[in-house]
Amino acid sequence: MIYADNAATTRMSDAAIHKMLSLMKDNYGNPSSLYGLGQEAKEILEKAREDVAGIIGARPREILFTSGGSEADNQAILSAADLGRKKGKMHIISSAFEHHAVLHTLERLKSEGFEITLLDVHENGIILPEQVEDAIRDDTCLVTIMFANNEIGTIQPIRKIGAVCRQKGVIFHTDAVQAVGHVPINVEDDNIDMLSASAHKFHGPKGVGFLYARKGIRLKNLIEGGAQERGKRAGTENVPGIAAMAVALKEANAGMEEYTSHLTAMRDKIIAELKEIPHSALNGDEVCRLPGNVNFCFEGIEGESLLLLLDDKGIQASSGSACTSGSLDPSHVLLAIGRVHDVAHGSLRLSLGEDITEDDVDYIIRSVKDVVEYLRNFSPVWRDLMQGKGKFIL
Amino acid sequence: MIYADNAATTRMSDAAIHKMLSLMKDNYGNPSSLYGLGQEAKEILEKAREDVAGIIGARPREILFTSGGSEADNQAILSAADLGRKKGKMHIISSAFEHHAVLHTLERLKSEGFEITLLDVHENGIILPEQVEDAIRDDTCLVTIMFANNEIGTIQPIRKIGAVCRQKGVIFHTDAVQAVGHVPINVEDDNIDMLSASAHKFHGPKGVGFLYARKGIRLKNLIEGGAQERGKRAGTENVPGIAAMAVALKEANAGMEEYTSHLTAMRDKIIAELKEIPHSALNGDEVCRLPGNVNFCFEGIEGESLLLLLDDKGIQASSGSACTSGSLDPSHVLLAIGRVHDVAHGSLRLSLGEDITEDDVDYIIRSVKDVVEYLRNFSPVWRDLMQGKGKFIL
Repeated sequence: MIYADNAATTRMSDAAIHKMLSLMKDNYGNPSSLYGLGQEAKEILEKAREDVAGIIGARPREILFTSGGSEADNQAILSAADLGRKKGKMHIISSAFEHHAVLHTLERLKSEGFEITLLDVHENGIILPEQVEDAIRDDTCLVTIMFANNEIGTIQPIRKIGAVCRQKGVIFHTDAVQAVGHVPINVEDDNIDMLSASAHKFHGPKGVGFLYARKGIRLKNLIEGGAQERGKRAGTENVPGIAAMAVALKEANAGMEEYTSHLTAMRDKIIAELKEIPHSALNGDEVCRLPGNVNFCFEGIEGESLLLLLDDKGIQASSGSACTSGSLDPSHVLLAIGRVHDVAHGSLRLSLGEDITEDDVDYIIRSVKDVVEYLRNFSPVWRDLMQGKGKFIL
Repeated sequence: MIYADNAATTRMSDAAIHKMLSLMKDNYGNPSSLYGLGQEAKEILEKAREDVAGIIGARPREILFTSGGSEADNQAILSAADLGRKKGKMHIISSAFEHHAVLHTLERLKSEGFEITLLDVHENGIILPEQVEDAIRDDTCLVTIMFANNEIGTIQPIRKIGAVCRQKGVIFHTDAVQAVGHVPINVEDDNIDMLSASAHKFHGPKGVGFLYARKGIRLKNLIEGGAQERGKRAGTENVPGIAAMAVALKEANAGMEEYTSHLTAMRDKIIAELKEIPHSALNGDEVCRLPGNVNFCFEGIEGESLLLLLDDKGIQASSGSACTSGSLDPSHVLLAIGRVHDVAHGSLRLSLGEDITEDDVDYIIRSVKDVVEYLRNFSPVWRDLMQGKGKFIL
């Protein structure tokens, strides 16, 4: 089996599993307890906080552990909105191709009276800092732009967008769920005020994530209750999960240079070969994208059939975000970059793991080519196009 | 070491650890993915939902997985409040000794215009159904009363309270974090509309819990985003954690009768012996309490010193809830049952694990007696009392 859906979730690293296992067995104390076992757990928790903070250039007290990226996104955005509301600033800037954890939170805020500007996304899947600059108003309280897109993998000019926000005095949040552990991030250098991350996207456990919030930004609780996480996130801390996340992040960070060059080579080979398929198109910029992300549209076929046939061949991939795979609507990301409805349905996302081999890549290329050809032979849409009825879009 | 703080958190059972480990290694798929690995994960998730639902007498679609008990409490209460608001019913009934996940959520609702009635708790730590009945008004939208108290372990007459609510047409939620896996619960028989639970209180993993919400009660999202959990809780599902929770709950349920009789005997022996300490008092009803819960006040000593000296002797206990242990305030639970400030400071909670032995119990009794005597010898308050200055409270 070739697992090529690492943007949906990753296999936990052996070291992260080992850490989790050993803590579940031996350090099960509640970090809020005064006795030995509790205090050990507290130390493990704070060490994890230091490790995570250190890797992204933050201070430990700026890291809040959450149950994942969605929770972190929700809390970041609602916190900034709350600060804005108090100052009479009720305008928020985001983009049309954010993750639903961002978009749906913004929808809620809209229903509460906030005005939301969703920036258009250029055809190549990039938001320009000038777009952000032009959209900022006196009553803007938050800019939230994702670091790397979860479907097409395009990496945004975060540092420059952050600089614009800083200059204008607006809080800048980035959903970095797809980026943390995959590309270098330093919240100081990158001018980031708030950042969301999820452990299971970088070989850590599911159900764990973190929110970075710059010192001075007052967070609003999403979960009220006990005084954990400096009173900002109630609930007994998931110490084994958090410590395993820190281990996974350290590993990802340590191996990043090596992985990046390998993954980029593998990615570019697939892209070059799949471009040869007639009436296909790469989605998103060819260079400014995550090292392991390949996303194509193929005219005349359904994404779902493509996936099922690839699954038969032992290749696990997706047509877009896993979070919306139950939906029949075409990807909002592909629509945002200007793909028309019919074409957006025929998309394929391959998100490669660090252990992918040249042989795997060759097999993927051959399989995709075969499956696309096979499906097109059965497609009435394709037949019509080939007979000159209707026009090719790609 | 004798771990006697199972109300704070429990050691994971071997079977739960094993389940979690095997899924982390082999079934890491995202349940929203269409291919094999994703669909396997989906099946595991839904099997866990069936298991959990079956044990508490619910239907699978009435179970929503969360990151823990606090999240479940928050979502339950905010959902019921939202339904109430829409009908112009903005009165909520709860009690003075609820967990902070409930009390702080109610405080937030108060600031939004809800009226909150916190019922007094009787000296024995029990809320009577008549109190609830008397407090219900035409504009009451929710009654939320905990199943068993997290400090003093008293079990509430939930079935009768639920019956009152049902008769009056008011939603009844119970924070059952301390009860699930420890006492028999059936949401049908017990007239419960919503119930919160946390896996790490019954030998499951940390960072996982569930909310039961009766069919027809429309939940409000706490976390917006992807369409997981029927659109009511966004974020990639923590499949290993959820499956491990189901395993732990099945074990707890299967062994309940045996454990209960053992734990009750051990508990009652400790209670009988500690009552012999002069100027001591059991907190909460002697009979209507969790099988493993012992909670005492000792006049003239500080709870914190007591805990540290017991820790030195290898006994891990607490003075109250772990969630507030950082606080210098006396327990709101002990104040609620009428303990005065000074006495509430000198409390000890022992929450026994199922594997506790007679020898452990004898050692605990001897140690507590020794430590209380030792601390009183150094206590100026105690010396004054013994010299007739001031009056004994207990």
